[in-house]
Amino acid sequence: MTALQDTATSIREMGVRAKAAGRVLRSLPTARKVEALRAIAAELRAREDGIVRANAQDVLAAQEAGLPEHMIARLRLDAAALRTVAADVEAVLRLPDPVGETTGAQTQPSGIQVSQRRVPLGVLGVIYESRPNVTVDVAALALMSGNAVILRGGKETIHSNAALEGAIRAALEAQNLPADAVQVIHDPARERMRELLRLDDLVDAIIPRGGAGLHRYCVENATVPVIVGGIGVVHIYLDASFTRDPQDVQRAAEIVVNAKVQKPSACNALDTLLIDRQALPALPDIARALLENGVEVRADAEAWGALQDAGIVVTPADAADYGTEFLALTASLKVVSGLEEALDFIAAHGNHTDVILTRDTAQAERFVQDVDSAAVIVNASPRFNDGGQLGLGAEVAISTQKLHARGPMGLRELTTTKWVVVGEGQIRG
Amino acid sequence: MTALQDTATSIREMGVRAKAAGRVLRSLPTARKVEALRAIAAELRAREDGIVRANAQDVLAAQEAGLPEHMIARLRLDAAALRTVAADVEAVLRLPDPVGETTGAQTQPSGIQVSQRRVPLGVLGVIYESRPNVTVDVAALALMSGNAVILRGGKETIHSNAALEGAIRAALEAQNLPADAVQVIHDPARERMRELLRLDDLVDAIIPRGGAGLHRYCVENATVPVIVGGIGVVHIYLDASFTRDPQDVQRAAEIVVNAKVQKPSACNALDTLLIDRQALPALPDIARALLENGVEVRADAEAWGALQDAGIVVTPADAADYGTEFLALTASLKVVSGLEEALDFIAAHGNHTDVILTRDTAQAERFVQDVDSAAVIVNASPRFNDGGQLGLGAEVAISTQKLHARGPMGLRELTTTKWVVVGEGQIRG
Repeated sequence: MTALQDTATSIREMGVRAKAAGRVLRSLPTARKVEALRAIAAELRAREDGIVRANAQDVLAAQEAGLPEHMIARLRLDAAALRTVAADVEAVLRLPDPVGETTGAQTQPSGIQVSQRRVPLGVLGVIYESRPNVTVDVAALALMSGNAVILRGGKETIHSNAALEGAIRAALEAQNLPADAVQVIHDPARERMRELLRLDDLVDAIIPRGGAGLHRYCVENATVPVIVGGIGVVHIYLDASFTRDPQDVQRAAEIVVNAKVQKPSACNALDTLLIDRQALPALPDIARALLENGVEVRADAEAWGALQDAGIVVTPADAADYGTEFLALTASLKVVSGLEEALDFIAAHGNHTDVILTRDTAQAERFVQDVDSAAVIVNASPRFNDGGQLGLGAEVAISTQKLHARGPMGLRELTTTKWVVVGEGQIRG
Repeated sequence: MTALQDTATSIREMGVRAKAAGRVLRSLPTARKVEALRAIAAELRAREDGIVRANAQDVLAAQEAGLPEHMIARLRLDAAALRTVAADVEAVLRLPDPVGETTGAQTQPSGIQVSQRRVPLGVLGVIYESRPNVTVDVAALALMSGNAVILRGGKETIHSNAALEGAIRAALEAQNLPADAVQVIHDPARERMRELLRLDDLVDAIIPRGGAGLHRYCVENATVPVIVGGIGVVHIYLDASFTRDPQDVQRAAEIVVNAKVQKPSACNALDTLLIDRQALPALPDIARALLENGVEVRADAEAWGALQDAGIVVTPADAADYGTEFLALTASLKVVSGLEEALDFIAAHGNHTDVILTRDTAQAERFVQDVDSAAVIVNASPRFNDGGQLGLGAEVAISTQKLHARGPMGLRELTTTKWVVVGEGQIRG
């Protein structure tokens, strides 16, 4: 098996094969899917040396190409990391299988019995960048939800992906399942990705995982429906009611620091702190906590002045510091006159994860009702907007659009429903 | 109010206004939405003369332009039809409001309380052709589900739509609700429609209602997610077990005739009858029933021969008669060796509505499981794949894609969910 095996296979042909494999997968009982995932985990472990070696080739090539260390870290897959990947596959097989679930069963006045049955989407196209673990994670989630998948990873992980694909396909074949349920596009040409995006008679959904540029490319070029993630600006609104007690001020500082610092590169990390004017006395403690954690704080004039009065000097913010996803140890601050101004600001800039810190339950409910974001959080860190933390077990991506899935997507979000009607010879009058 | 009022307003500006209106709508209690719809129905009745007059202008223009009578029939809105439209608005206000429903409430190990709350999509873009009743039907469904809507009808109904829009907006204003919740694009230039399709920062979903060409145009040009309908090929597979009893043969003929004849222009009308070779003795009765109802029958060689032996002459089918949506009094026939060949055929050609006629429950379940279409029907007419017949009350469109909604779309399909998290100061470890 060579990393370029698919250059002779057109993307359309891959789609045809995936659709045929999907037809087998959609009727598999849960137990067979569980066995298949168990076999994949075992095969990954059995091929540890080969996979780690293939990955070392990718790492070496990246080093020679002068890629920055944080990017090399992302693509590295050593033996320990591979064992985690295999264990993650086993975590997926323990999740409840959403396929086959029946809802809304009822008999209509015509006498027909109507219900909706949960079924796999069919064929997924997943496009991602340099983490090779995604190849396995996504394959496991797709298979467990009864879907075939065509994967398109980054060109930096071409050898790793070929080795991982080989293990997955061998395990499927050994289980008498169609290996074409999992296919990787190895040809790094953008034109191949574009062909995948336009295969709307064969592929049911495109899920991009990566930066805003990748998502935009998919939206602009796809005729297959795309589940978009991409840019997510995260706000915390700190209400004065959460600053009356010194313990609350400390709690607010901890939440703000956790929101910004725990994983600054995550889409659910804090971007902008909106602070109620009445809460300004608490601002120095919060700003100090951010600065101590290495955060660059960019403050509007009013917050800047209040901090200067407390002997704290921060960066003055400009307009571009609001509605911006920093993905780095930077946060902007803005003083607002209260909840309503915060809501207007979030209506203009938010869509991903927004938090209110308040002791006023009516305010909390108003915030939850008015804010139109994938996740609205009261008195906790925005970092909880995550598949694992919300109870999905595993996530294939985080959607920021509203159609089909919003927020973290687990197995259920990789399914759809079909109407099932059982009659006794009825015709429509 | 002139029919061209919006030419001075850019499509983007309409989107901005719709988004602002949507923010108001999403928090309206059910009772206010019910009142708004009641007011719209009343206003339509109060403006009957003006609306009927405006429609007469459209009809006259269509006649002068030489449009065929069936198209003129579609755009005609006389007093009786308008009263039906008003009554349909009142039918929508009696449907259960899906907004606000909470699902999956649970406390996570971290102590945060998690749930999903059903919320409106936000702003819908609905593109349709010449039926002016769609303007009101869609506005009512959008408002009842808490959404703002931008409508783009056909240029043939420009005066009717302006009059209907005027009534709806006046009723909203009288209810102290934002009139911009319902806006109609009157400029018939395709470029305006394309602008709407690309307003992905303001519009949450595009729903085209019309022919395959319109759907394709939307898919090719939109950056807003599109819910596609369009082509739908409908099959009935007649198994021998449904032909052993003469009453069953008669029943099969009634279902096949109902499927084809009751409304040949509907997307859920029969296109291809697949007949089990063992069921061929029943074919003459069925073919005769179709012919008596004016259906052109196009048969493959084997079916053609069997019919000729019975003294029935039909048209020989060619390859283009399979996988084709006729939308007319034409049906194709094909003999298959049994269920498995029927399933393979449907896997290649079906996606909309597929029916099995069988007395064998294991076969029925295999058919329901394997066929990957929006609706799978056992022993009843495919014409039951309809929002009203399936219990949705009213439908905004029929989706043939798998993302978000599949099959008839009612109020619930115009909503999404958001994650709601309530903590007590938790941070992520």
